[in-house]
Amino acid sequence: MPELRKDPIIGRWVIISTERGKRPHDFVVEPEVSRGGFCPFDEGNEHTTPPEIMSYREPGTAPNSPGWRLRVVGNKFPALVMEGQLDRAGEGMFDKMNGIGAHEVIIETPDHNATLTTIPLEGFMDVLSAYRDRVVALSQDPRFKYVVVFKNSGRAAGASLEHTHSQLIGLPIVPELVQEELAGSKFYYNYKERCVFCDMIRQELQQLVRVVLENEEFLAICPFAPRSPFEVWILPKNHLSSYVDLTQDSCRLLAQVFQETLQRLEKVIGKAPYNFILHTAPFREPELTYYHWHFEIMPKLTLMAGFEWGSGFFINPTPPEDAAQYLREAQL
Amino acid sequence: MPELRKDPIIGRWVIISTERGKRPHDFVVEPEVSRGGFCPFDEGNEHTTPPEIMSYREPGTAPNSPGWRLRVVGNKFPALVMEGQLDRAGEGMFDKMNGIGAHEVIIETPDHNATLTTIPLEGFMDVLSAYRDRVVALSQDPRFKYVVVFKNSGRAAGASLEHTHSQLIGLPIVPELVQEELAGSKFYYNYKERCVFCDMIRQELQQLVRVVLENEEFLAICPFAPRSPFEVWILPKNHLSSYVDLTQDSCRLLAQVFQETLQRLEKVIGKAPYNFILHTAPFREPELTYYHWHFEIMPKLTLMAGFEWGSGFFINPTPPEDAAQYLREAQL
Repeated sequence: MPELRKDPIIGRWVIISTERGKRPHDFVVEPEVSRGGFCPFDEGNEHTTPPEIMSYREPGTAPNSPGWRLRVVGNKFPALVMEGQLDRAGEGMFDKMNGIGAHEVIIETPDHNATLTTIPLEGFMDVLSAYRDRVVALSQDPRFKYVVVFKNSGRAAGASLEHTHSQLIGLPIVPELVQEELAGSKFYYNYKERCVFCDMIRQELQQLVRVVLENEEFLAICPFAPRSPFEVWILPKNHLSSYVDLTQDSCRLLAQVFQETLQRLEKVIGKAPYNFILHTAPFREPELTYYHWHFEIMPKLTLMAGFEWGSGFFINPTPPEDAAQYLREAQL
Repeated sequence: MPELRKDPIIGRWVIISTERGKRPHDFVVEPEVSRGGFCPFDEGNEHTTPPEIMSYREPGTAPNSPGWRLRVVGNKFPALVMEGQLDRAGEGMFDKMNGIGAHEVIIETPDHNATLTTIPLEGFMDVLSAYRDRVVALSQDPRFKYVVVFKNSGRAAGASLEHTHSQLIGLPIVPELVQEELAGSKFYYNYKERCVFCDMIRQELQQLVRVVLENEEFLAICPFAPRSPFEVWILPKNHLSSYVDLTQDSCRLLAQVFQETLQRLEKVIGKAPYNFILHTAPFREPELTYYHWHFEIMPKLTLMAGFEWGSGFFINPTPPEDAAQYLREAQL
């Protein structure tokens, strides 16, 4: 019999097919076809992107020239613009504001053919450090309240260029799902006086049925009520509400768990398109007792997105216990 | 400059590209390729579907035989099962229940090649009546709290069979987005003592910039803060919280507005995949002063779904004012 399961943070119910659950080879993953041609993210083509906002590069090399390991540039087609003052206004009963915000691209490596599963661990650490450095920098801008850091991998997940990259959008508002997470975890904290994520981590480490892998500081799990097959969350084991406090030592441990998770996913479901998103506390909050930063990785294996984002109601054909077992047992 | 806009019901902010907004022909709509072969929804193949739950058919014809205009059958691969008692249980901190529910398919016409834009108005009325009749029937089952009525049109929107059909899922819980809508509209009502949807309708009829079409009883609008390009909502002009009260006269007027909206959409964006979803009050509620039933139609023209359902944050390249104008001016 299928099961209805409730996400403990937001309270969202999902349907999980516990019998005849879909196995990895039941999903049709269409291969990405290389589009070839000129790539603005390749080394030597720095002048074809908007100017560098930040980079990790060899000492002595100039911005917007070769010699970099990672570059952050403005998005050429930004969803929001950086220049201007925030201006809130009404239109009758409706509310709007002008579209002030940051839209940046993190070019993860100069190597056109590399991916997050193939770059060296140090390269993966660069990516995670760049996320932190940009979140810290944008949090200094008083116009912004939040930054969404995310990666679209593969065309069906929204990537328009194949050269591996992530994006971030700095916002003058806190997005709805983050607000819901904050409200849900605060509600739990008010009742239990414990962080819901910490409770979840404790239970997962005790049950060991949805754990994918762990090290001293980080844990990868398939969550109890996942929206998509092979959804994986990566969390720090110790309570931390904001990603900005990530130390360099922790960054290495996070990169180990994160990269191995992506490698295990690729082994099990192939080069399926995926998104991942950093969930962290809003800017200028003190350390929050009730919130816990984490990454959510969502492979795109099912097609129900339209109906699901219309109803908020998800049908997941793969139980997370099965997904976690496939991922644990994958031979890397 | 782009604009941030807030949905007045849920409070969800979206980014609208007000300059260089995408026009209809900027979207790439991949043509649906007919998959041919045997179709279980064709007349004469009634024995290949699960048994009929309801049908509109010629007097004297037997269930599960030809002579029908519309059939409702169980889904052959149901997400939930009808038999059993509801059983809630915990698993440590997590909550679950067994997957009791209804999963039905509404075969909208025996004509394999018809669509909702080509069937006669009476056929469209049959579809809308069938929705109502099934919602009424399922609301009698004390195990259920809500029914999600929806249509996936086109493969990319989740349709696995090309013969035109809708689906419904009867649930022992109220889905998250419906709960949010109820909470948001109640919050508005508590403050204003007016229904937020009624206020929205009044303003749209006054501004006339986002109205697509209307008749005596129904209105089609592009909402102020749409998640997707060419998103259209269809609402009764008079306050009504539940779809079950739809009379036969109103059904004809609704069918006129609904079918013409779909025809205008097809004229403007071609046979793009789309989803539509009925939003109505939960079962066994009295007439609610603060809620207003409606349909939401969401064409699938953009690919950002993965990131967006991860963050609850939508980027819409087409302002609803532009979309409404294209739809109004389409020559049918």
